[in-house]
Amino acid sequence: MKELRQISVIGLGLLGGSLTRAVSRSFPRVKTVGFTHRPATREKARLLAVADKVVDDISQAVSNADLVVLATPIHVFEKIFIEIADVLPAGCIVTDVGSTKTLPHRWAKKNLPKTVHYVGSHPIAGSEQRGVEFARDDLFYQANCILTKTQDTNTSAVNTLKDFWSKLGCLVTVMTPLQHDEILANISHLPHVMAAALINITRPEQLRLAGKGFIDASRIASGPANIWADIFLTNADNTSKGIDKIIAELRKIQKALKAGDQKQVEKLLETARNKRDTMIKYKMSKRELT
Amino acid sequence: MKELRQISVIGLGLLGGSLTRAVSRSFPRVKTVGFTHRPATREKARLLAVADKVVDDISQAVSNADLVVLATPIHVFEKIFIEIADVLPAGCIVTDVGSTKTLPHRWAKKNLPKTVHYVGSHPIAGSEQRGVEFARDDLFYQANCILTKTQDTNTSAVNTLKDFWSKLGCLVTVMTPLQHDEILANISHLPHVMAAALINITRPEQLRLAGKGFIDASRIASGPANIWADIFLTNADNTSKGIDKIIAELRKIQKALKAGDQKQVEKLLETARNKRDTMIKYKMSKRELT
Repeated sequence: MKELRQISVIGLGLLGGSLTRAVSRSFPRVKTVGFTHRPATREKARLLAVADKVVDDISQAVSNADLVVLATPIHVFEKIFIEIADVLPAGCIVTDVGSTKTLPHRWAKKNLPKTVHYVGSHPIAGSEQRGVEFARDDLFYQANCILTKTQDTNTSAVNTLKDFWSKLGCLVTVMTPLQHDEILANISHLPHVMAAALINITRPEQLRLAGKGFIDASRIASGPANIWADIFLTNADNTSKGIDKIIAELRKIQKALKAGDQKQVEKLLETARNKRDTMIKYKMSKRELT
Repeated sequence: MKELRQISVIGLGLLGGSLTRAVSRSFPRVKTVGFTHRPATREKARLLAVADKVVDDISQAVSNADLVVLATPIHVFEKIFIEIADVLPAGCIVTDVGSTKTLPHRWAKKNLPKTVHYVGSHPIAGSEQRGVEFARDDLFYQANCILTKTQDTNTSAVNTLKDFWSKLGCLVTVMTPLQHDEILANISHLPHVMAAALINITRPEQLRLAGKGFIDASRIASGPANIWADIFLTNADNTSKGIDKIIAELRKIQKALKAGDQKQVEKLLETARNKRDTMIKYKMSKRELT
């Protein structure tokens, strides 16, 4: 397994800043270097000391890195791959923390030199907050992290990243980018679409009367619109299929309601309740939830 | 305004038990009497001392009451109205804490004597937990409470209940049962249907990878299936219309996704985000949220 001496993070928002902080905590001897495009954010990151070094130039950020992590919006990954391709040291591992994986793999294959190893990472962590000022060194603790690989992916790089994320406290699973994007459409992108749609059909004077159930159910709709549009559009097919699936399921409940079929309504609700209880128990057994 | 000396609660689950406890805290001189159909729950309620007195007979529970509150599933309200109609003292106020209001008003009008005054109450409080063992005297604190009245409703009884719920810490709003059921379909029944549908279309191995966003978005699906089936079926028309509305909104997002229309996707998400932020700010200003 590769020894990591320098980890460079491109993009210093909630995720990027939390990553450098988490690395400093779990790997105190590893040097963390941060870069982000906006000068004002670099200044903020320096004041908050989220990384050992925050540099003004992306080439400088990656030229001595053993591991480079992209933590920017997904749609700029390709541009960044092109920018850093010639500067990356041979043997360097490149990954990202983006929420969709098919396009990043495609862009990496097309633009990165054969001497470096791309593996996708998706730590399922975060919050509706954004910005380096919310960065926390425990953001990844007990979070699931999915690594994605294809037939071309270097196995040793996958193992290094497995070890890396595990040491930050993640529960690591490995799959293909296609599998990842299908699953995430269901457990993340679709719920987000649903939360936004729910808010959008609710009038402001109705929202004022909403209770805790509604507030929790809609929390994810407070995430940054541009970041989520970026995610949806880089996983548009799966998200759109998810919308078809949820509509079919809603129609099933609607049919039972219109028929006044108490038994069927109860059955659909009971199935959901039991499945959710099983999920919660599983997550408690894995200490994802306490 | 009517002086309340005895308040009787029929149904001692989370809501009923919390109500007697809250009354004891806010009105220490008012006598609380509880009744519930299951002997085992009566025994539990006595051991937990949730009311001054837990009686074995529904007539005994209500015969000296100034205020009777139904806290059972909605579909048994009519049966209870019939059972207690002849025993209720003249001038007694009857209310309930059910989540739908059109049918309770209809049943009250049909079955209760003209000498008593029915007003609907819906304190928007609760949790996915159930049972008298979770009863808390602060469940209604800073919760919205909607009172429902029709042209037939006694104004003085409405005022007494306004005062009653306010003293328990509720933010009281008055409207018609029709308005109530339309609003609640949107802010409560529909989100619940959506949460259940989301769980039902997600495979167990996908659920294992779900993050905090999914867990919060689906929390309400862990509510008791029979209680919620009861709510949906007593508000089936509005809930069904809500399903149509959410489907139309989901199709709108789907269309933008399929067209790769970044601007439109962002606009829909941004609208939701801003509306939710306004809701949260409003609720913080009212101290519903801290």
